[in-house]
Amino acid sequence: MTFPHKVRKILDCYESDTPGTKANLCRILMQGHLAGTGKVVILPVDQGFEHGPARSFAPNPAAYDPRYHFQLAIDAGLSAYAAPLGMLEAGAAHFAGQIPTILKLNSSNSLATEQDQAVTGSVADALRLGCSAVGFTIYPGSEYAFKQMDELRSLAEDAKAAGLAVVVWSYPRGPMLDKAGETALDICAYAAHMAALLGAHIIKVKPPTAHLSLPAAVKVYEEQNIPRATMAERVRHVVQCCFDGRRIVVFSGGENKNDTAALLEDIQGIADGGANGAIIGRNTFQRPRAEAMDLLARIVDIYRKAE
Amino acid sequence: MTFPHKVRKILDCYESDTPGTKANLCRILMQGHLAGTGKVVILPVDQGFEHGPARSFAPNPAAYDPRYHFQLAIDAGLSAYAAPLGMLEAGAAHFAGQIPTILKLNSSNSLATEQDQAVTGSVADALRLGCSAVGFTIYPGSEYAFKQMDELRSLAEDAKAAGLAVVVWSYPRGPMLDKAGETALDICAYAAHMAALLGAHIIKVKPPTAHLSLPAAVKVYEEQNIPRATMAERVRHVVQCCFDGRRIVVFSGGENKNDTAALLEDIQGIADGGANGAIIGRNTFQRPRAEAMDLLARIVDIYRKAE
Amino acid sequence: MTFPHKVRKILDCYESDTPGTKANLCRILMQGHLAGTGKVVILPVDQGFEHGPARSFAPNPAAYDPRYHFQLAIDAGLSAYAAPLGMLEAGAAHFAGQIPTILKLNSSNSLATEQDQAVTGSVADALRLGCSAVGFTIYPGSEYAFKQMDELRSLAEDAKAAGLAVVVWSYPRGPMLDKAGETALDICAYAAHMAALLGAHIIKVKPPTAHLSLPAAVKVYEEQNIPRATMAERVRHVVQCCFDGRRIVVFSGGENKNDTAALLEDIQGIADGGANGAIIGRNTFQRPRAEAMDLLARIVDIYRKAE
Amino acid sequence: MTFPHKVRKILDCYESDTPGTKANLCRILMQGHLAGTGKVVILPVDQGFEHGPARSFAPNPAAYDPRYHFQLAIDAGLSAYAAPLGMLEAGAAHFAGQIPTILKLNSSNSLATEQDQAVTGSVADALRLGCSAVGFTIYPGSEYAFKQMDELRSLAEDAKAAGLAVVVWSYPRGPMLDKAGETALDICAYAAHMAALLGAHIIKVKPPTAHLSLPAAVKVYEEQNIPRATMAERVRHVVQCCFDGRRIVVFSGGENKNDTAALLEDIQGIADGGANGAIIGRNTFQRPRAEAMDLLARIVDIYRKAE
Amino acid sequence: MTFPHKVRKILDCYESDTPGTKANLCRILMQGHLAGTGKVVILPVDQGFEHGPARSFAPNPAAYDPRYHFQLAIDAGLSAYAAPLGMLEAGAAHFAGQIPTILKLNSSNSLATEQDQAVTGSVADALRLGCSAVGFTIYPGSEYAFKQMDELRSLAEDAKAAGLAVVVWSYPRGPMLDKAGETALDICAYAAHMAALLGAHIIKVKPPTAHLSLPAAVKVYEEQNIPRATMAERVRHVVQCCFDGRRIVVFSGGENKNDTAALLEDIQGIADGGANGAIIGRNTFQRPRAEAMDLLARIVDIYRKAE
Repeated sequence: MTFPHKVRKILDCYESDTPGTKANLCRILMQGHLAGTGKVVILPVDQGFEHGPARSFAPNPAAYDPRYHFQLAIDAGLSAYAAPLGMLEAGAAHFAGQIPTILKLNSSNSLATEQDQAVTGSVADALRLGCSAVGFTIYPGSEYAFKQMDELRSLAEDAKAAGLAVVVWSYPRGPMLDKAGETALDICAYAAHMAALLGAHIIKVKPPTAHLSLPAAVKVYEEQNIPRATMAERVRHVVQCCFDGRRIVVFSGGENKNDTAALLEDIQGIADGGANGAIIGRNTFQRPRAEAMDLLARIVDIYRKAE
Repeated sequence: MTFPHKVRKILDCYESDTPGTKANLCRILMQGHLAGTGKVVILPVDQGFEHGPARSFAPNPAAYDPRYHFQLAIDAGLSAYAAPLGMLEAGAAHFAGQIPTILKLNSSNSLATEQDQAVTGSVADALRLGCSAVGFTIYPGSEYAFKQMDELRSLAEDAKAAGLAVVVWSYPRGPMLDKAGETALDICAYAAHMAALLGAHIIKVKPPTAHLSLPAAVKVYEEQNIPRATMAERVRHVVQCCFDGRRIVVFSGGENKNDTAALLEDIQGIADGGANGAIIGRNTFQRPRAEAMDLLARIVDIYRKAE
Repeated sequence: MTFPHKVRKILDCYESDTPGTKANLCRILMQGHLAGTGKVVILPVDQGFEHGPARSFAPNPAAYDPRYHFQLAIDAGLSAYAAPLGMLEAGAAHFAGQIPTILKLNSSNSLATEQDQAVTGSVADALRLGCSAVGFTIYPGSEYAFKQMDELRSLAEDAKAAGLAVVVWSYPRGPMLDKAGETALDICAYAAHMAALLGAHIIKVKPPTAHLSLPAAVKVYEEQNIPRATMAERVRHVVQCCFDGRRIVVFSGGENKNDTAALLEDIQGIADGGANGAIIGRNTFQRPRAEAMDLLARIVDIYRKAE
Repeated sequence: MTFPHKVRKILDCYESDTPGTKANLCRILMQGHLAGTGKVVILPVDQGFEHGPARSFAPNPAAYDPRYHFQLAIDAGLSAYAAPLGMLEAGAAHFAGQIPTILKLNSSNSLATEQDQAVTGSVADALRLGCSAVGFTIYPGSEYAFKQMDELRSLAEDAKAAGLAVVVWSYPRGPMLDKAGETALDICAYAAHMAALLGAHIIKVKPPTAHLSLPAAVKVYEEQNIPRATMAERVRHVVQCCFDGRRIVVFSGGENKNDTAALLEDIQGIADGGANGAIIGRNTFQRPRAEAMDLLARIVDIYRKAE
Repeated sequence: MTFPHKVRKILDCYESDTPGTKANLCRILMQGHLAGTGKVVILPVDQGFEHGPARSFAPNPAAYDPRYHFQLAIDAGLSAYAAPLGMLEAGAAHFAGQIPTILKLNSSNSLATEQDQAVTGSVADALRLGCSAVGFTIYPGSEYAFKQMDELRSLAEDAKAAGLAVVVWSYPRGPMLDKAGETALDICAYAAHMAALLGAHIIKVKPPTAHLSLPAAVKVYEEQNIPRATMAERVRHVVQCCFDGRRIVVFSGGENKNDTAALLEDIQGIADGGANGAIIGRNTFQRPRAEAMDLLARIVDIYRKAE
């Protein structure tokens, strides 16, 4: 039973981390159908916090039950399951040891008055719930970006000391950015790079468009002819911006949630660009379970072939 | 094996510091091609945070990999390498002990809505990563200057107790200053002096122009005939403002990044003015490695002759 | 060897303080040429922070070196030397034990956008540097006055527990006050009283003018015929406002820095009014050392005769 | 006003200490009749704890009042006064600032069942009482020696961080030593050396006899012809064992408390051997005050001439 | 400028340690004449504590001064200098950065009544003194072995978090062992193995004899024909017992202090057995400096050739 070369190569990039953090990264990389491929598909369920329960779960009422998501992630052979405190507490004991979990430490909500998130969990929570990682969202560009980075700094320091991995959701928004800017290639790459600089082990960003936003950046992308016509080209650039591929980068499913073919095409492009995988929530759990299982099988398949 | 007189003289200026801090200053002063001369050239790589990855690294894609910068600093015989948390984590184990490192504890970014920086590292991080110093940026003149000084005070107190050195980047900006004011001689000297008053061991400022900004200062500079026609004269004044040369003062490379001759002329002037050295990033790592090595060799040479 | 009655009388006023704080007050009262007289002359050097280095030191370049001020205070037989962190660190080891030092814990600067100060030192810093007291500035009248008083409360609490004395610079300014108001007698007396109420051991204010500022106060001053024609009368009132002379009150040198005769006349008036002494910086270190020594000798002489 | 060369030379030996600790050592070295000579005479009054009040104070009942000892030390021009918590609390406020005090942090008593001491004070106590140093006794050779060294380590670490000096009484006793062994030259030198290794700033031992105790040491003393015939020779050896004279070493008055001539002869020998001074308690406060003053004057005189 | 392969190979064995600890191990491995060879010679000076000052230093009185040993280690091109708190404090500021230092955290003495050691330093002391490592002695076989291991566990945990290396002196003694047993091959190998199991980065043991002590071990050594006739064979076995050579193992100079030829022969054997080097104190500093320099040069030479 040789340890997969691809996992070894990834773990070697985390050279300053403790064996505990490496072990938790390894657990995620060795779980489910993608075990050993260096690719991951992670199920995140924090939409209830962000958009409210009915918007999130009414299309597939079984999903109101937190155990639904644990079981879905396990049955679909995914790599990890990420959720806020209460969601994990509602299933962590029963599913203990069956799938790596990621405790999302902060969350926003649709009633919020500010572009910020509330810290709703701790590293101690993550340890008692048996999580492999903590997750944290930053909004680069927001008036709260510095505050969020400060919070992340402190939580990540504790998490690393406790041997946990750190997953950073880096979602640009704020007064500097229009809607197109939030997913512009330069902004997405920048957001991913900032997460890497902040010490993230796993970086989650949205699939970038070919749009460019910051004037100073536009100039460079054009002068340097950085390819951005295809999703694969754009993702390749984002991966490069994560320490030249030395950090795990995963992408959300994008906006095509009603068009499965387009969604899969996007994911194929992301995979072709060298991404480490997908974090995909709404697109799956809002469908009936059979459909979700089918969709997840196809996504897993794309990444299995991409290795 | 006599200990260099010039290093002894510098260390003696830090009379209130612990042997630990002195040892870390000594490590920087005894590293690379300038070892023992009392001069230093430091490679800082925080431009990815400030300007984004593509603007920083696309001109020389090898620089996307954090290990590139460690190796460049080592191979060019530099004195230390400074970077944010993630950059150091990505190479600190492999390059452990090969070059003194400086953990930049705060960072700004081009999406920021405020003239502030996020705190993105800690003294404990610096210790576990084997750093010789921590770095911190203040923006005198910004609405966040007092907050930043408070943060620096607390971090510097911890760093000194743990035997680390403290490097302060002092970059004036804010509502009191127009663009010319930010590098005006009086402002630059003032910024350097404030860093010294805040207890910095190493002070980094930008090369000053002959411009004067604060009306109350203009009067004094003219009455006292403080020479400021040449870069050397201006730097001599900044050095004087750092406790009459009793603190290490280093300068960035300035704005001439596309004109190597002008850049070297600036650096020659800075060296002639008695500066302790250069902190020079973009001007080097954005060139192909061979060119960067050549440029750094010339800068090192200027300081070696200046000793 | 009888302990001077005047010092005993002063120390007895600090009846709730620890022996440590009394010992440190005593050290200041028993130092230099005024030892035992109950009078003090203190050298403060924080002008570099407030006005920038060139405006502070260019008229007498030897003063760029922090050690200059330690030596000046010692040689002139002064009672204590007050300065921010970096200034003290640059000489505290060499001059250890030769003159009581006061660590100024907050400082403003001419680039500041707010009428506030940055906290730039701690009680732990004061202890490791061997200081006898900490110093803190409040701006009664500023939008930041309450924040500053909160900061002072916390720092003073720590300082007192560690046996240090607390010196408060009370400088009224802010939207309620015009320029004349800042040194109006009622305002100056009020500022001194607030410092006393905040628990200061030594209170520093500016010499008051005969002007009155607060309408409600004008009425009382006139009804009660509070004398304010001469400096001595005004200072006597301020002293009275500091717990009827039961707190040490010292005055800055005022604005007459270019007219030595006027300066000395002011100081004579202040001394005649029963002040405990002077905190005088710029007026001394901006002159050539011989002149400064001469001026300080004359000020010390005024206070020696005033006892 | 030149700072005495002898004090400078001594302070320079404490190169790793903070300015605070240096300042407190300086205070002791600049106090009383021996100010500036590099010599000290310290009054310790912990005999009440060790032998009970009547045995200590009945011969001179005025000494029951703790203030008696403060006043004696001040009036005799001594360098410092050392006592346990209660003794200092009973006078520290009244005598604040008049003489450096040393808070004895542990004490034994005649009812004790073990060769140990109780810790009866803290570094925080020393700060609130305005002490310049803390004192601690170790019994090398006792079954409690390791425990005492552990306690000293922790207290000394705190004291040094707070800028206090550390005085160690090193009194060998225990099952390995007979009565003669306790003051044997080899044992006394060893005890002094251990105090130095434990980080003491001031070391107090008993005057050594010419006796040698440890068989393995006897051999070396004889082979190396270490002179030990006279008190001066023996003290010179002890001084050498304190880092070749780089730590302040003081001696108790010895056993001749009823024979003043013999006592003074011992002290002359100790002074001739290069000791930094005397810690002398019982021999003075058990005499009528006039006699004590006379004796102390003669001891001070011996050290003044010895400089 | 290629990093030496032998140092890389050693550092790679410490895979679970932080970059800080690796950097400090690297500093030791890259210092002095053996820099880059994977071999080290360390000067330990704790004999003053163990045997008393005269037995340690009288043969070469210059060695009473702590600075002598720093200078000897530097001038002889050694890899590090190890000593208790007071010894390091007496030179750490002057020699800051010139040679890696190891703070010995516990020490025994010849007056001790128990086979234990006192803890006389802390990790915070090591940081403020700029040390690269802490040192700790355990006595496997003593009644205090478990207590010592507990102390080591706690101190090593702190040291590792602060990026320091941990050196363990493992000296078997106690009721289970006769004199011959203390250096018996099985016991020495066992002691080295326990140090490795306790998490030591560098292990120091005494050169083993061919004697075997534990009856249960004798049987295995004989059945397995473990070679032990020569010093090289015995050392090879000890190295194997330190995780098959994956921990740095160094040996004391042995008992032949009066016979240089025998000493060098032992060291040659130790080097031939694959040891990483020597920790050698008394054998060097008890000779006149010129002789010590000569002896150290020869020892360094043995290890340079052994690489």
